[in-house]
Amino acid sequence: MIKNRSIRFVNFELAKLPVVFLWSKKSKWVFLCEKAYQIIDTAIESSVMTKVKGFGVHNGQVMDVADYVTPTQGASVFCIITKTITTENQVQGLCPESEKRWICNNDSDCNPQRNKPGDYGILTGRCVSFNNTNNTCEIKGWCPAEIDTVKITPMMEVENFTIFIKNSIRFPKFNYTKGNFLPSINQTYIKKCNFDKVNNTYCPIFRVRDVVHYANQDFRKLADKGGVIGIKISWMCDLDKSDEHCKPSYSFNRLDTMSQKNEVSPGYNFRFAKYYKMENGTDYRTLIKAYAIRFDVIVNGNAGKFNMIPTLINMVAAFTSVGVGTVLCDIILLNFLKGAEQYKAKKFEEVKCFRSGKNMGTALTSPW
Amino acid sequence: MIKNRSIRFVNFELAKLPVVFLWSKKSKWVFLCEKAYQIIDTAIESSVMTKVKGFGVHNGQVMDVADYVTPTQGASVFCIITKTITTENQVQGLCPESEKRWICNNDSDCNPQRNKPGDYGILTGRCVSFNNTNNTCEIKGWCPAEIDTVKITPMMEVENFTIFIKNSIRFPKFNYTKGNFLPSINQTYIKKCNFDKVNNTYCPIFRVRDVVHYANQDFRKLADKGGVIGIKISWMCDLDKSDEHCKPSYSFNRLDTMSQKNEVSPGYNFRFAKYYKMENGTDYRTLIKAYAIRFDVIVNGNAGKFNMIPTLINMVAAFTSVGVGTVLCDIILLNFLKGAEQYKAKKFEEVKCFRSGKNMGTALTSPW
Amino acid sequence: MIKNRSIRFVNFELAKLPVVFLWSKKSKWVFLCEKAYQIIDTAIESSVMTKVKGFGVHNGQVMDVADYVTPTQGASVFCIITKTITTENQVQGLCPESEKRWICNNDSDCNPQRNKPGDYGILTGRCVSFNNTNNTCEIKGWCPAEIDTVKITPMMEVENFTIFIKNSIRFPKFNYTKGNFLPSINQTYIKKCNFDKVNNTYCPIFRVRDVVHYANQDFRKLADKGGVIGIKISWMCDLDKSDEHCKPSYSFNRLDTMSQKNEVSPGYNFRFAKYYKMENGTDYRTLIKAYAIRFDVIVNGNAGKFNMIPTLINMVAAFTSVGVGTVLCDIILLNFLKGAEQYKAKKFEEVKCFRSGKNMGTALTSPW
Repeated sequence: MIKNRSIRFVNFELAKLPVVFLWSKKSKWVFLCEKAYQIIDTAIESSVMTKVKGFGVHNGQVMDVADYVTPTQGASVFCIITKTITTENQVQGLCPESEKRWICNNDSDCNPQRNKPGDYGILTGRCVSFNNTNNTCEIKGWCPAEIDTVKITPMMEVENFTIFIKNSIRFPKFNYTKGNFLPSINQTYIKKCNFDKVNNTYCPIFRVRDVVHYANQDFRKLADKGGVIGIKISWMCDLDKSDEHCKPSYSFNRLDTMSQKNEVSPGYNFRFAKYYKMENGTDYRTLIKAYAIRFDVIVNGNAGKFNMIPTLINMVAAFTSVGVGTVLCDIILLNFLKGAEQYKAKKFEEVKCFRSGKNMGTALTSPW
Repeated sequence: MIKNRSIRFVNFELAKLPVVFLWSKKSKWVFLCEKAYQIIDTAIESSVMTKVKGFGVHNGQVMDVADYVTPTQGASVFCIITKTITTENQVQGLCPESEKRWICNNDSDCNPQRNKPGDYGILTGRCVSFNNTNNTCEIKGWCPAEIDTVKITPMMEVENFTIFIKNSIRFPKFNYTKGNFLPSINQTYIKKCNFDKVNNTYCPIFRVRDVVHYANQDFRKLADKGGVIGIKISWMCDLDKSDEHCKPSYSFNRLDTMSQKNEVSPGYNFRFAKYYKMENGTDYRTLIKAYAIRFDVIVNGNAGKFNMIPTLINMVAAFTSVGVGTVLCDIILLNFLKGAEQYKAKKFEEVKCFRSGKNMGTALTSPW
Repeated sequence: MIKNRSIRFVNFELAKLPVVFLWSKKSKWVFLCEKAYQIIDTAIESSVMTKVKGFGVHNGQVMDVADYVTPTQGASVFCIITKTITTENQVQGLCPESEKRWICNNDSDCNPQRNKPGDYGILTGRCVSFNNTNNTCEIKGWCPAEIDTVKITPMMEVENFTIFIKNSIRFPKFNYTKGNFLPSINQTYIKKCNFDKVNNTYCPIFRVRDVVHYANQDFRKLADKGGVIGIKISWMCDLDKSDEHCKPSYSFNRLDTMSQKNEVSPGYNFRFAKYYKMENGTDYRTLIKAYAIRFDVIVNGNAGKFNMIPTLINMVAAFTSVGVGTVLCDIILLNFLKGAEQYKAKKFEEVKCFRSGKNMGTALTSPW
């Protein structure tokens, strides 16, 4: 008989995680659901500001934030330059290519039609003297051509630089805003602390050394070749709980994993130039090939809050899923069939019990 | 009997919003659904271009777009610089720290081991004369050190600047493209209008004053400390309706809400430098600490369009949810049970009615 | 009788695509489902690096990457400048407006109160000589004012530039990482190849010409007016299949479609400046109005992997959807009704068959 049977109805969907359990045991019904009574806001709005601090010495110069951070705006994606190959005083003109593979014996080796495009300019088709021993193909462009095979030690001080992250989030459905400077933490602490995964899990200041370490990378290699590190901030907020339970959680990993495995393009670098003018108006520039660690601050999260509508819907859904059959069967049984009288008695006993539903009410307010 | 009963079946899911209502009243079935007959494209593709116009005066200079907008590319995230603290003619060298907390009496106060890192360079460990009255710790780096405690009035003209936003979107599933210059609005209007929330809700030109006001901010404070304002463009398009119903809707709010509440880092600023060279090749630079209003143009949206497949699925789902029970019950009742003959008569009466389904057809093409 | 009937139960949801088919034919049950046995990770983490190669000639100068790519960091959004209008040696001062619409006869035509804001500076209210024939309103700002009506041929060499895209992705749920340099492709190939849609669908090097062509654009027009091209990389990975089935798929389209149709703002351009200093410390700058092709590399994708939980859930869901009715009907029929004995016999015959479920097992491991 239905009273002694345990019916377990599982109606959950993975992606959205509402779980509804329904069973009857000795005429007691329990309605348990995981967040099925909440509406969820996944459209998190986020704003990230970053600020790097620290000084390094590179090529004999002291480098500060304005020198080594790019883009300078302090947004969620920024690069810390760890190593530069600088080619000063380039002017437009003609000069020999700088790399070994452009060594030539005569002009026919430098035919622009036959050759791939030049590395540092447009091939003129002439073979000219590069140094005392070698000739290379001549190019037209910014001269002299960069020599990027020099060995340069990366700026090791970067390890001690700190990244300050200010992250404000908003869940528009609930007009709930919060920031990663938790109110539970005092301001003098925030100014001085350094994030770690054990004792300072909510400190918004991150040492580069730690970030690189948490992403399981070797700093020296990363600084030498360049790479991309993701700093992920997750906000999973149950807004039915007290405000202080809505907290960021930080994780770190290398995003350009391919760079490590692959020989073709083993890191992260880019070129830019600083432009100058001579007295006479001639343009010249300093070309910089910069190796950098790029940091991508990625924010995600969602928030749930109690709401009558999903609660009702989920209850209705749960009950109708079971109930539709029952209802229809009931209609049929109660009206058309011979066993009807006997069934009716049983039926209404059960329904009465169901409607009183004390356990159900409790389950809603303190879900499991 | 089923004919006189009202069965209401709710099968809706919050996140995806298809709502199916089914009821029978006096043998008339109605199938109502909210967008359950549409496929939805949530993968909106968007392209944003922005252009700021206006002139301000700051530190005695007229500032134009190339001076105060950064990054310059006119993408969806850009800063309008409202205030700058400029330190001109910095060269690499030795000089005293500029802030009070670095005041020292003798070299031992400036021990780099004992102290936190310098503010504007690497501590040399010496205590040197800052001005006639004070000594401060000496640093190695870009000299002279910035003095960022000066009071500077922000560039109030920014309030009158205009932001022109060109937003093209595409729903790849339907290959539907549209832009925020609505075809219903004529071109001379677009050139001259200014967005407001009452009469010019589709004008793509926004005055900074209005944006700041709609985000409930005080312009003077924002310009003084810096901050981040979100300009949200929502496209909710029912592509079964005429093209002119697919329109952008603009909303505004401050994204870095934490900056307002918090003392540690109360706004938005960043540092960058302009690099120069002396005749003799020595590098020097102008360091700029810029306070800015950052604007993030955020585009979201989705589109729905009638499609047989979800219509069928939803109908089938709705009917099977009800129907599975019925079908099975039917099978059982029609085949195995004694009341079968009586039930059969009732059954087919109902089914006939259901299949004629005039209301159902109408509901699908003009859903409510 | 149920044995001879074909019950087809469709329980699929469009957005998430799990499809469950269930039918019985001659007491054989088949459970087919499309990915309903997988958990899906849609939170793809992606890192994009780009590098452009090629040389062009513009205004008599050879342009390289540092000159024509902006921002320089090689991130997922970058511009290739195709045309520039350069105004050299601007200094702060007074000068006439440069455009026809500012032609004036006397000072009253230039009243700042009566007029719209100036194009290139702040109106002083004076009407001054522009050239031998015309007077225009005077402005205060960077002088001389830009003349942007000159006809300039875009840098056609851009067509032959190549874009190298390095894309690493990660599915955090499965800690699965992959890059667009497929291991199945050798390294010398990757260095030399050019992407095309027929023979080189996995080559990570894209010629601008091809990208523009695949996006159905005319290069000359695009280079002249500027525009935004999307390069979409889709990763749809079934991680139950061998690793080599998880591959990127590239697609291209113009994102700023509105620019093509619209007269108000027909392309993509922006202004920036290079700042210089005279010997005496006076600032001057070169203003550059740049027309550019902006490339947005957009990465999306998801991955699925077999997991017992969704498999069980989906099976349970599929079975209970059918089963709830049945179970309840069974309970009713087996316990309360007169035909019970006859039904019981049939029932358990069917169930036995169902539990043996050979077909079901096969379907799960090789879904259709």
